[in-house]
Amino acid sequence: MILTVTLNAALDVTWSVDSLRPRTSHRVDTAHERAGGKGVNVARVLDALGHDVVATGLVGGATGHRILDELRAARIRSEFFEVAGESRRTVAVVSRDDGDATVFNGRGPFVTTAEWQLFHRHYAAMVTDAQVVVLSGSSPPGLPPDAYAQLLRTASAAGARTVLDTSGSGLLHALEARPDVVKPNADEIAAATGHPDLPRAAAALTALGARAVVASAGPDGLYAVTPEGTWRAAPPERLAGNPTGAGDACVAALAAGQEAGSAWPDVLRTAVALSAAAVPCPVAGEVSTAVYRRLLPGVRVEALPGGASASPRPTL
Amino acid sequence: MILTVTLNAALDVTWSVDSLRPRTSHRVDTAHERAGGKGVNVARVLDALGHDVVATGLVGGATGHRILDELRAARIRSEFFEVAGESRRTVAVVSRDDGDATVFNGRGPFVTTAEWQLFHRHYAAMVTDAQVVVLSGSSPPGLPPDAYAQLLRTASAAGARTVLDTSGSGLLHALEARPDVVKPNADEIAAATGHPDLPRAAAALTALGARAVVASAGPDGLYAVTPEGTWRAAPPERLAGNPTGAGDACVAALAAGQEAGSAWPDVLRTAVALSAAAVPCPVAGEVSTAVYRRLLPGVRVEALPGGASASPRPTL
Repeated sequence: MILTVTLNAALDVTWSVDSLRPRTSHRVDTAHERAGGKGVNVARVLDALGHDVVATGLVGGATGHRILDELRAARIRSEFFEVAGESRRTVAVVSRDDGDATVFNGRGPFVTTAEWQLFHRHYAAMVTDAQVVVLSGSSPPGLPPDAYAQLLRTASAAGARTVLDTSGSGLLHALEARPDVVKPNADEIAAATGHPDLPRAAAALTALGARAVVASAGPDGLYAVTPEGTWRAAPPERLAGNPTGAGDACVAALAAGQEAGSAWPDVLRTAVALSAAAVPCPVAGEVSTAVYRRLLPGVRVEALPGGASASPRPTL
Repeated sequence: MILTVTLNAALDVTWSVDSLRPRTSHRVDTAHERAGGKGVNVARVLDALGHDVVATGLVGGATGHRILDELRAARIRSEFFEVAGESRRTVAVVSRDDGDATVFNGRGPFVTTAEWQLFHRHYAAMVTDAQVVVLSGSSPPGLPPDAYAQLLRTASAAGARTVLDTSGSGLLHALEARPDVVKPNADEIAAATGHPDLPRAAAALTALGARAVVASAGPDGLYAVTPEGTWRAAPPERLAGNPTGAGDACVAALAAGQEAGSAWPDVLRTAVALSAAAVPCPVAGEVSTAVYRRLLPGVRVEALPGGASASPRPTL
């Protein structure tokens, strides 16, 4: 079983307006509402691909109940822990005139220390059944800065492999717990390490504890530094559409690869094709299996000289 | 008792962002959430002024429960009817850099015919205790086009005076039920009648059935056509601030005037001062009693030649 963890689950809401005009009033149609947060989206992709997956994390309040209702309706197995605060909404305001989206992300509920400790216990019980644990997204207010490090240690102690997709100081704090795979995107890895150069930044993350770093460079594909070697993997073509779900689809492929124990070049090929297969879909958590199958044979995976150990010593 | 009716009650939410930039992502802080909709705001003003007031209308879903919770916390007496659909939110996105607000208004729940009939029965029972009924704002989807006319007839049959504040076809449809007072603003009256000229537009509304028309012209004050005469009423000064609550404060004054049986010049003086007293307040439903008391003696009420009957015959 693959367990996905979403500490700051959200109700993703899409509002349709004629045209977004700052400083005016808009009549809004709610196009759709669904459970969101990166870990939830990863669970959707894994579920669609036939994997045994459970989504956990923190939800709260009336918005939390809507999140759970929607997951039930979508038949995603979930075991969330309820907190007293109110789960956040993320609202995408989409203009009918040009299709452009303007996004508003809430911060999420304040989580007390007692709630965090109870969640950790709930999580520890689930981790014993998991071969892979995926930890995705931002943390809600109130959590300790090493929240992900704590969860990673519990997973590793239970024998599960771990995949981490977060950013900023949350990413840096987590590395001391030696995640098996971290998946920042190009902006996140540069912001977290201070290195705009992908190879240097990835080397910095491995030096801080990441066993493997898979950095996504948007339509250019992936750059991976692993114990088996260093690779670039690129899709055979660039697709137009909505890139927001591509990172979560990539994480789903990395988790599936960890579960199967696949070789890294195969994992990266799958991850690139699955990321690209999310781009034509309007919402995160969906992939086009037709696009996935069409692109997979054409993904180019290129071994690069020098593993993580041959990279220049990072200075953070 | 004054009964206010809000058929499309809302949860009014204020989001604070650094700066609203279309086509980008924003981190949002929720500044406050409160029960809203025009009738709710009118009830708040009347309650603050010490009137015996009850708020009714339609609410639904988790958002409806938040609306009722907030009214309870604010100690506004309310007797809303619950429908199965979800009440709307109105979101004001306020930029911290310039204080400007961009507003998103949801449409509200779909109300079934059976729900509408049950609400009407609930309302009819309350109307027997009301001296004045205030009907404010838009209708949610699903209501019959003559919804306000039905409610007005029930109120009049029970001996209550009626004040109506709505716009568009909902206003025109309601006039056949002969509301005692209608309060459109300058834009609404022009849109509903096709007459950009206030006197002609007001005459059109009286010809269609309104017993009195009090049209608000923003900072210029009020224009009133009543059975007792025609007046202009203007504040002694123009105030800077938030005009969104001024219309609801004006309606509160008109309702209080109907309850007391005050002479129209006195009602208009109060209405102008109370409207202006809402402008310095950050949210609708609040008034500055200090500003109200300061402005009241200086309001100019000017009788105009010719009553409603002397106006040119409207052509609609």
